Amino acid sequence: MTKDIRDYIRTIPDFPHEGILFRDVTTLFGDAQGLRLSVDLIVEACRDKAIDKVAGLEARGFILGGAVAHQLGLGFVPIRKAGKLPGATISEHYALEYGTATMELHDDALQAGERILLVDDLIATGGTAAAGIKLVERLGAQVVQASFIIDLPDLKGRDVVEKMGVPVQVLCAFEGL
Amino acid sequence: MTKDIRDYIRTIPDFPHEGILFRDVTTLFGDAQGLRLSVDLIVEACRDKAIDKVAGLEARGFILGGAVAHQLGLGFVPIRKAGKLPGATISEHYALEYGTATMELHDDALQAGERILLVDDLIATGGTAAAGIKLVERLGAQVVQASFIIDLPDLKGRDVVEKMGVPVQVLCAFEGL
Repeated sequence: MTKDIRDYIRTIPDFPHEGILFRDVTTLFGDAQGLRLSVDLIVEACRDKAIDKVAGLEARGFILGGAVAHQLGLGFVPIRKAGKLPGATISEHYALEYGTATMELHDDALQAGERILLVDDLIATGGTAAAGIKLVERLGAQVVQASFIIDLPDLKGRDVVEKMGVPVQVLCAFEGL
Repeated sequence: MTKDIRDYIRTIPDFPHEGILFRDVTTLFGDAQGLRLSVDLIVEACRDKAIDKVAGLEARGFILGGAVAHQLGLGFVPIRKAGKLPGATISEHYALEYGTATMELHDDALQAGERILLVDDLIATGGTAAAGIKLVERLGAQVVQASFIIDLPDLKGRDVVEKMGVPVQVLCAFEGL
């Protein structure tokens, strides 16, 4: 029987802190068939969307995004945590459970009008993805698809992204936290 | 005229601190031809090496490693900074200019006997790469090729890795710091 995306994902209790069930994609990426299936499903979903570049969210989004960009024959643009990108950047703050965090994008990484595929391993509250979309839009480009391997539907991040007018693809979902 | 790998790389002075010329691969990865050329050169060099898995060093090694693993039809394994991997890990410390840092690998990420391609964007002193190689070897696997986009030959990291018995591929070099 063909394995589903979910079958490759390992759940680790109490990471990063007690009470959290962490959905670990390293077992998916570490498996040749798992990585291939993930990339194929995302590439298939954006075939008719005339994507110009792939953007990925640090750090697990880099693994997936590098593979997807290469398969599509496109360049890859990293959206990183504060202080990691060496050139001139624009930044967006977003809320965490306690406090805020910041994502950055090189201010010359995208051209106005470019059509962007945004990828990450997981969508939870959607805060990081929303920050990424805002960064792309501030450079005059447009996220035409946001693809995630895992959705945590209880946290409603998908709604947050869709309300920004960005179509969302998720490859699987895990109910509960 | 065909562009060389070096032509895609941007140099940013005084990052992360004054006096450093930072070699920025985001302009290479962001260009479709640049990313493709990097992946092709690495894949070509390991064609006859019977690689089982690709391992990449956090975080720029994830972008390149994801693409290379996908092109080779293999799984990808992340080697991460301390505290980032959710499962049980092994760890290796290595020296920085001031103090030490730690790299980690899931203790079940590789099988004994597996042949590993290690990738990162840049080799400087070789500290991070050496830690990665030690982690792979502690699981009974073997790094049969270590590929880097950029070599900083003045820092002699290539010698460090080659003295561990690991063949090194670099796609370009920048003299001076």
